[in-house]
Amino acid sequence: MPIDIRTAATLAASAYRCPLGSSSSSPSPAAARSIFATLPSAAAAAAAALLRPTRSASIHLKPRCDFLCSLAITRTSSFVPRPPPCSSVRWTKRTPLRPTAISAARSAPWSIAARYLASAATVGPSSSTPASDPQTKNSAISSFFLDALSNMSSSSAPASSPSAAKKLKVAIIGSGNWGSAIARIAGINTERHSDVFEKDVLMYVYEEEIKGKKLTQIINEEHENPKYLPGVKLPAHVRAVPSATEAAQGAHLLVFVLPHQFIGSVCKELKGKVDPSARAISMIKGVDVRDGDIRIFADVIEEALGVDCSALSGANIANEVAQDKFSETTIGHREGERGRESAELFFRLFDTKTFKVGMIEDVAGVSLCGALKNVVAIAAGFTDGLGWGDNAKAAVMRIGLMEMKRFSEEFFKGVKPETFTETSAGIADLITTCMGGRNRKCAEAFVKTGKPFDQLEKELLNGQKLQGTETAREVHEFLKARGKVDEYPLFRAVYSIAYEGFDVQDLTSKL
Amino acid sequence: MPIDIRTAATLAASAYRCPLGSSSSSPSPAAARSIFATLPSAAAAAAAALLRPTRSASIHLKPRCDFLCSLAITRTSSFVPRPPPCSSVRWTKRTPLRPTAISAARSAPWSIAARYLASAATVGPSSSTPASDPQTKNSAISSFFLDALSNMSSSSAPASSPSAAKKLKVAIIGSGNWGSAIARIAGINTERHSDVFEKDVLMYVYEEEIKGKKLTQIINEEHENPKYLPGVKLPAHVRAVPSATEAAQGAHLLVFVLPHQFIGSVCKELKGKVDPSARAISMIKGVDVRDGDIRIFADVIEEALGVDCSALSGANIANEVAQDKFSETTIGHREGERGRESAELFFRLFDTKTFKVGMIEDVAGVSLCGALKNVVAIAAGFTDGLGWGDNAKAAVMRIGLMEMKRFSEEFFKGVKPETFTETSAGIADLITTCMGGRNRKCAEAFVKTGKPFDQLEKELLNGQKLQGTETAREVHEFLKARGKVDEYPLFRAVYSIAYEGFDVQDLTSKL
Repeated sequence: MPIDIRTAATLAASAYRCPLGSSSSSPSPAAARSIFATLPSAAAAAAAALLRPTRSASIHLKPRCDFLCSLAITRTSSFVPRPPPCSSVRWTKRTPLRPTAISAARSAPWSIAARYLASAATVGPSSSTPASDPQTKNSAISSFFLDALSNMSSSSAPASSPSAAKKLKVAIIGSGNWGSAIARIAGINTERHSDVFEKDVLMYVYEEEIKGKKLTQIINEEHENPKYLPGVKLPAHVRAVPSATEAAQGAHLLVFVLPHQFIGSVCKELKGKVDPSARAISMIKGVDVRDGDIRIFADVIEEALGVDCSALSGANIANEVAQDKFSETTIGHREGERGRESAELFFRLFDTKTFKVGMIEDVAGVSLCGALKNVVAIAAGFTDGLGWGDNAKAAVMRIGLMEMKRFSEEFFKGVKPETFTETSAGIADLITTCMGGRNRKCAEAFVKTGKPFDQLEKELLNGQKLQGTETAREVHEFLKARGKVDEYPLFRAVYSIAYEGFDVQDLTSKL
Repeated sequence: MPIDIRTAATLAASAYRCPLGSSSSSPSPAAARSIFATLPSAAAAAAAALLRPTRSASIHLKPRCDFLCSLAITRTSSFVPRPPPCSSVRWTKRTPLRPTAISAARSAPWSIAARYLASAATVGPSSSTPASDPQTKNSAISSFFLDALSNMSSSSAPASSPSAAKKLKVAIIGSGNWGSAIARIAGINTERHSDVFEKDVLMYVYEEEIKGKKLTQIINEEHENPKYLPGVKLPAHVRAVPSATEAAQGAHLLVFVLPHQFIGSVCKELKGKVDPSARAISMIKGVDVRDGDIRIFADVIEEALGVDCSALSGANIANEVAQDKFSETTIGHREGERGRESAELFFRLFDTKTFKVGMIEDVAGVSLCGALKNVVAIAAGFTDGLGWGDNAKAAVMRIGLMEMKRFSEEFFKGVKPETFTETSAGIADLITTCMGGRNRKCAEAFVKTGKPFDQLEKELLNGQKLQGTETAREVHEFLKARGKVDEYPLFRAVYSIAYEGFDVQDLTSKL
């Protein structure tokens, strides 16, 4: 059912936070016309895109919104909109469309035009007005435009349109607990957004035998990963392959989600075999430490393969995500147009109703959150073991978050403080990690049993290395080489207690 | 034992983050001299204050640091310093002492001079360098100077010095669970800092009978509040009185810590009886709602009594604080010199080794954190009741924190975003409230039992009103009157579920 100009005006005005002139949710046609007269051009274009191409619509819109409206109107046939999901978003300034965006949009296919519209409408908060939520701001805008426009293209674009030839192929490099959960979501979304993605998703599985049968074979026959994500069905079009090269060949979007000790060998294998215009995203936990330097894995991948690499991290316990329990996550992307485009494509690949993706221009911050939080979780586990109560635990988490932020800002370029204090990758993931999780658990046991960490690793983690103590040591050595150990008293306390026999009762004595 | 110039130089340089020229922790006398030559004057003065007045010290210091050094040197006799507690603090700019500060310090007693020094040294972070932790920055500076200077004055100032006549009298207005815990800390600190405070603390107790005996009598005889803080001894010099007027009369520092329903009548009683130069601090939970407006209690007190009023809030479960388990708290203070002075005096009154006080210039933000967190705790309790897991709970807490921040910035002046995202009053208190606490508990029971909140209040809280649902309703009516309900989807969902019969399964459907 087509919508009328009043609804379109209301939707656009509300999406852009334009004053409606009254609190009425459905203005009169006259009021709607005057709303259009004051809308910024991007908002008017969005409104136009929601409208059937009627003569009256073009009379109101065309003079105001130049070619973008006519573009929208002439391409739209019929379209049932859903309410914009950006009701909690505010724009605090309005910028006119940039000329480059306009000329690019003029000749671009719908999905590209939408991205230009979205980026033209995205402006930072001004300091005198309330700031928006960085976790949801960009995603809400993108979601609004991309949904609107892909709905239109699927209902109106001919099957032989050029965009059909450009469907994007997705490869998941890794198939552990988190890899399997994320492959499931990617598979759901390649089918849902079949205008953007090729439906089939290849997943690289490190081959092993389960009860005499190959793991790839089990996954492809039973559509389940019984070893790492038992009890959860994967879409049938997620296909397991035992070779990273096979999975990555011809892929436009590469999702790296494997334990960090394998990233070096996989990158070596893939070198020269990946399309240089492909885009990668790293979901790898931890940091790469070599020759006294700390690097994030997105940089390692970008350098090894020569492709743009984003990062994804958040409060994402894999089993909960696999069961479609509500959660959020954060994509950290690179600077500039291409970085933003990558983020929007990965947003499209992962965002669902129960897995909400936010975006922020900060690859390093998002990556470092995922590594440093484990050091703080050790400290939080110590307070649990000591029975110090909720005040102490919350204080240690707060102080830890501040050290994470300060460390990242001091030693990495382009880190944004709000990545730590406001996104799912930052504060939310810290909360889940300090409430549950193996780091917290082992640290509590360390205090209660008096056993050393290497023994607890054997007893509680089947000999796996504990990430928190490992990262604490790496960070300590990094800081020591720079004479800055004392500037991070919580990091130092965790290291000293875990490795130097310091009394855990002194955890907060230097804070 | 007096310290030498090398140690003094190192301490001062480290407190002020001045480059030492090498990583050696104890520079040679020659290096120490050159350090002094480059120290900003406030740092040099602090170093001088740590030194015995030797001829060589004055040779190095006097030409550089003018009267402040000589002031420090001539007043110092001997002093054993402790390492500066500000090792995690960084100053990113150095400001010269303001002329007004210098002339004020010239004639002021030690405690005032220290405050001027501290305020002169307090500068905000520059945007190009890592930001400091707002929770600890100011407190670390104040703690360093005040400790150094009060130690000096207690060892060297004659008993008949003018500062002896200016000792500050403290009154605690309230004696519940939190009031008793805070009275205990105040009593410990008035004794510890007997140069600043009168030792005796009067505590207003709403008189009631416990087993035939008056509560004031029990407290004064047994030094314990058996009704609200059983098992914890209060200092003997904390004296209970049954009249707010008696407690407040002649007091220089007034601590308001009573249930919000009593604040109106107590202010009415005290009107005109409080020294207009006194300073107040509000630890009252919640907000004052009248005629569709929301006000913080610090403003209510300030208006009623005509005295400067700060606010204190944080991750402070009273019983844990009373047992000296580690925790942090935040003082929000008013603008300007007087606001900062008030905060520093209350800092001195409350800060201990296990109760760490931070300061931020934001009375409204600190107050609103303490009220709005309870709405978020209801939402967090819903996720617990639904069994949605840690991801969902952390996401709801993050989204709630963003709505708290945005609401406060939109409707209150001078609110700082970092109060919400970085201090104990903000993120840390939200964590404790969403992990334990009655709001979370009742909301969980609401989902699991299907009973309405008023019934749960009777069953679980002995008929006390639940703060979270109450505040959710107040905030909802406030937003509704302004046509902004939809801009705060989590606040709205909590209201709709608690009062409008919305399905709790839809908690996150609009997020």
